[in-house]
Amino acid sequence: MLASWRDGPARRAIEDFVRRTTDPSSPEVIPAEERIVVTDNDGTLWCEKPMPIQLDFLVRRLGVLATADPSLRDQQPYQAAYERDTRWLGAAMVKHYRGDDTDLGLLKAAVTSAFDAVEVEEYDRAVRAFFAEADHPTLGRPYRACGFVPMVELLRYLEAHDFTVYIASGGDRDFMRPIAPELYGVPPERVIGSALGIDYRDGRLLYRAEMDFFDDGPEKPVRIWSRIGRRPVIAIGNANGDLPMLEFAGVGLPALRLVVRHDDAERETADSGGAEELLARAAREGWTVISMKDDWERVFT
Amino acid sequence: MLASWRDGPARRAIEDFVRRTTDPSSPEVIPAEERIVVTDNDGTLWCEKPMPIQLDFLVRRLGVLATADPSLRDQQPYQAAYERDTRWLGAAMVKHYRGDDTDLGLLKAAVTSAFDAVEVEEYDRAVRAFFAEADHPTLGRPYRACGFVPMVELLRYLEAHDFTVYIASGGDRDFMRPIAPELYGVPPERVIGSALGIDYRDGRLLYRAEMDFFDDGPEKPVRIWSRIGRRPVIAIGNANGDLPMLEFAGVGLPALRLVVRHDDAERETADSGGAEELLARAAREGWTVISMKDDWERVFT
Repeated sequence: MLASWRDGPARRAIEDFVRRTTDPSSPEVIPAEERIVVTDNDGTLWCEKPMPIQLDFLVRRLGVLATADPSLRDQQPYQAAYERDTRWLGAAMVKHYRGDDTDLGLLKAAVTSAFDAVEVEEYDRAVRAFFAEADHPTLGRPYRACGFVPMVELLRYLEAHDFTVYIASGGDRDFMRPIAPELYGVPPERVIGSALGIDYRDGRLLYRAEMDFFDDGPEKPVRIWSRIGRRPVIAIGNANGDLPMLEFAGVGLPALRLVVRHDDAERETADSGGAEELLARAAREGWTVISMKDDWERVFT
Repeated sequence: MLASWRDGPARRAIEDFVRRTTDPSSPEVIPAEERIVVTDNDGTLWCEKPMPIQLDFLVRRLGVLATADPSLRDQQPYQAAYERDTRWLGAAMVKHYRGDDTDLGLLKAAVTSAFDAVEVEEYDRAVRAFFAEADHPTLGRPYRACGFVPMVELLRYLEAHDFTVYIASGGDRDFMRPIAPELYGVPPERVIGSALGIDYRDGRLLYRAEMDFFDDGPEKPVRIWSRIGRRPVIAIGNANGDLPMLEFAGVGLPALRLVVRHDDAERETADSGGAEELLARAAREGWTVISMKDDWERVFT
């Protein structure tokens, strides 16, 4: 089932953990209902460089707003959106992972006003339309084909051993939900992520012009608990924002912590900006690091 | 499977809806993944008079605090807790359903400070200890035996037809989770409810002295969407706070809306305080009203 995984320490650590925790005769067996897996999305299940896919969706939306209102064009992030300047946007995320939220603050404000009073079902349709046509800017493939094949295989392998997979992402929950079933086989009720506030009015749910919460860093364990009511036993991430989630996994039970390292300039990217702290911690504590270059036979479909 | 249900309009409406939406040859068939059921808890799955069960749990906690600190004893709700004055507490909920949140505000403040900096796992243990020993004040039975048998049968009947049941309650999510599997066969990840704020610190989740949200009235559809990402097709409630949830069900799909009416003074209670608006709306729109007195052969185990 892990057909795209080469033999190596990562694959062996995964198979060994699954054997130890699911073999009924093992002293470390975990009851099926406790076999909870949480995985980050951006940079873990699909690519996030040169910028998270959701940012491209937002860029297009902000670009439309800046086209309609020229006064927006000399303000960030509308300027970057209007000029399709992806560098400013990608840098904003790296700054965030390094602890500087200045640019992310500008982005958040624009994002929230971009969908003010939009109904949840209308947003769902906009996301589906985006994925039906949008292509990755450098990889030459549709965004809907940017999922990492070995990771999707891993999710199926875990499910075959009665693990239940949740996506726990800093990305917008409702941006992932329309495509998570097709890309990852994960249904909407198992997608955890950042969220806009929502108002209920006369049978309709309308987004507010403010975030409910930003699901990254120490907020990830909080939102995992809120949704699941259990600690995960497997946690998978790739950036500093995933560190608390990995740390949170498996207290009182065995735990497997996986870190995806972007070291494959040829097939994807060798940019680990924003992952320094996580990689250092993984090395210090012996968490399993997955090398895209060494551990994966192929990356994409 | 509905062994405790008498033949009558409520049972027939339920069976008819399930037949129409699950028979593959029916023009109204609903795909299995869309068969989402949301049900209130207090007054719908278990009794809530003379006061919600959670209030008794809180009363005991506040009583302990007032015993330790005499200065609290002339303030509400500590006074009521210390004197075991259940009338003040029950009345606070009825006032809330009628739109007056004065007393509920006092209660909320006390509740939140009562678990400040308590770890989620410690709270879980406190809830389990409460249900292991606490009895209902008037019914002469343990709280863990206060679930309505016909409603538990209904949940099993719906699951047998591939519906997925979520509890969507105004009560505290983490208060219901430890006992929902045993009482209702509903796992923690399918319990939606009010929530305290939570902080993550060094691998631990600690409650904050403030609510994250109060899951009642128009907040119920918001929290259902947040957790599930779909509209329910069956919604079940008993009080005015459930009205938006029932209204929210089944847009674009067939919907079944069920209202539990407390009209059984002999076996439970005939007190419908706080349900006036919901019962009027149900009558006006032809929603199915379940009479505890007429429709149920028995109420409790």
